[in-house]
Amino acid sequence: METKRVKAFGTESSEADLKQLQIDRRTVLAKDIEIDILFCGVCHSDLHFARNDWGMTTYPVVPGHEIVGKVTAIGSGVTKHKVGDIVAVGCLVDSCRTCNNCKNDLEQYCPEWVGTYGGYDKHLDTNTHGGYSETIVVDEAFVLSVPENLDLAGLAPVLCAGITTWSPLRHWNVGKDSKVAVVGLGGLGHMAIKLANALGAHVTLFSRSPGKIDDAKALGAHEVIISTDDLQMEEAMSRFDIILDTVPYEHDFNPYIATLKTNGTIVVLGYLGPLDPPLVTVPMIMGRKSLAGSLIGGIAETQELLDFCGKHNITSDVEVIDIQKINEAYERMLKSDVKYRFVIDMTSLKN
Amino acid sequence: METKRVKAFGTESSEADLKQLQIDRRTVLAKDIEIDILFCGVCHSDLHFARNDWGMTTYPVVPGHEIVGKVTAIGSGVTKHKVGDIVAVGCLVDSCRTCNNCKNDLEQYCPEWVGTYGGYDKHLDTNTHGGYSETIVVDEAFVLSVPENLDLAGLAPVLCAGITTWSPLRHWNVGKDSKVAVVGLGGLGHMAIKLANALGAHVTLFSRSPGKIDDAKALGAHEVIISTDDLQMEEAMSRFDIILDTVPYEHDFNPYIATLKTNGTIVVLGYLGPLDPPLVTVPMIMGRKSLAGSLIGGIAETQELLDFCGKHNITSDVEVIDIQKINEAYERMLKSDVKYRFVIDMTSLKN
Repeated sequence: METKRVKAFGTESSEADLKQLQIDRRTVLAKDIEIDILFCGVCHSDLHFARNDWGMTTYPVVPGHEIVGKVTAIGSGVTKHKVGDIVAVGCLVDSCRTCNNCKNDLEQYCPEWVGTYGGYDKHLDTNTHGGYSETIVVDEAFVLSVPENLDLAGLAPVLCAGITTWSPLRHWNVGKDSKVAVVGLGGLGHMAIKLANALGAHVTLFSRSPGKIDDAKALGAHEVIISTDDLQMEEAMSRFDIILDTVPYEHDFNPYIATLKTNGTIVVLGYLGPLDPPLVTVPMIMGRKSLAGSLIGGIAETQELLDFCGKHNITSDVEVIDIQKINEAYERMLKSDVKYRFVIDMTSLKN
Repeated sequence: METKRVKAFGTESSEADLKQLQIDRRTVLAKDIEIDILFCGVCHSDLHFARNDWGMTTYPVVPGHEIVGKVTAIGSGVTKHKVGDIVAVGCLVDSCRTCNNCKNDLEQYCPEWVGTYGGYDKHLDTNTHGGYSETIVVDEAFVLSVPENLDLAGLAPVLCAGITTWSPLRHWNVGKDSKVAVVGLGGLGHMAIKLANALGAHVTLFSRSPGKIDDAKALGAHEVIISTDDLQMEEAMSRFDIILDTVPYEHDFNPYIATLKTNGTIVVLGYLGPLDPPLVTVPMIMGRKSLAGSLIGGIAETQELLDFCGKHNITSDVEVIDIQKINEAYERMLKSDVKYRFVIDMTSLKN
């Protein structure tokens, strides 16, 4: 297969900082789109994958799955996009396309979905490489259209942080009569507030920090409950239809479940692991409450979100950095020292 | 308030066997129905409540919330039933009737619902007494009509074991395209199999005992998976839309969650307590799976079930006993030595 060598940023071991590398991209096949990457968001997963925190990394790793860029070449069979279009790529670059989940626009739950990085690249028989690079080549079925009115740096995190919160808001039918709560105000949490607000819901942030009240309200929260304040938590009993829990570390879900109405659902988006302290079943039985998980979103749903963001003028609040600052950004991200997402200006890779 | 003294069976302490007692029943108020009790099913809750296993019992206790009987008197404002009708009473005898849950036929989730026993009897300012008694007086809003074609002893457990499994089958839209699994073959489990089968679903029983295969199939299961057989469990991956977990003791929910399809739900019906081993979130996130609880059912839904049982000729498989055998029955119930529910012939109380 014909390939092009391009510049990228990545790492060859879990211990090493990210640095400049060279990787191969295939030249476009019939259905392929070649994209010159303009911006790439920095997701917590990028860091976890680079450092092999989940024990599944193959090196070298080139992270990045919040990609916005310009089409530079298309295959002979491409109909969705043309050279010069601004397009986006999220967490998926392929799936089996034949299973029930794929047929139902749920490619993110296809057992064979191919991650934008760290997946299996069947064309090059290597692992896929993500958006910390000059270009990416993706089948048009996984390339999204970008509304013309939005800031492209702010748009990048919509591809992961945005869709991860949008998908459960839509699946659980959030609308103007909904009472939505969000746990945690980071990359996911700030998008959850903006999107739930734009859907017309009443939005509450649970936070441990009184210092976040003003920021949360500026983002669209109608109310902030300080989760360490027992009185406030007691007053919040049985109030919410849905809670999006974006907290990425071990914490107690039971106090939040108490704040769900009958038939309410708490959706785990951020925490991977066993629930410790363990979930207590009695309140769930006594109120037909649910605890669910949810993973990013499908391609059609991601396009729906991008169109919604265009219509409502929603982007992520970002801090734009050069790629040479990525290791420093990882350290700051671990301390939640960013409002609310780093986005790499990928033209800096040409320096 | 005018009352009548009637015979009952109950206990005055958590340590003592059940024995004959006398209790007071109010004479009928305008909306009341007086019922001469013919049969009363024996639920695990009866035993737990009598022995104060949940630390909330007030004595004396007269258990029983699977009640079938004949109307012997009605108040001046009663329109639903007449003297001589065969009627039924389940787990609830009142609720606030004004909250959102009550307005939506979800009286079982009303914060002020009154249990058939162990609740607060506002008329007599005492605790409510259940169906192990000669008569019961209940507001007509909580008295159910009984189909004419059914065996009355077999019908009694439908009022608790039946509705506890019916409500989630209906709430999660089980029908002819559904793949339903049931964990545990006891009072709840055997009703779950019969009802899911009658709804047209494909029904699988998870059991630890190969000895239960024939019985489960006779009840309507299309398949039995031995949950201690790793190969069978592996082959069951991603197969079910809904799992009704009826097991009343601590057990590991994670292996069952692995057998849910994308969007599948496991519903906890039997186990009260913390999930130990704890629930692991990754498979829930990777398949948008849910764990939910569910509690009995509302009054309209219970009537719907009774009508469905009449149409499909469904009753519980029961062993009918005299009330004098109740303590022995409790011991056998603790050893799961009953197929599948004890029902008391309440005429034995007149002996």
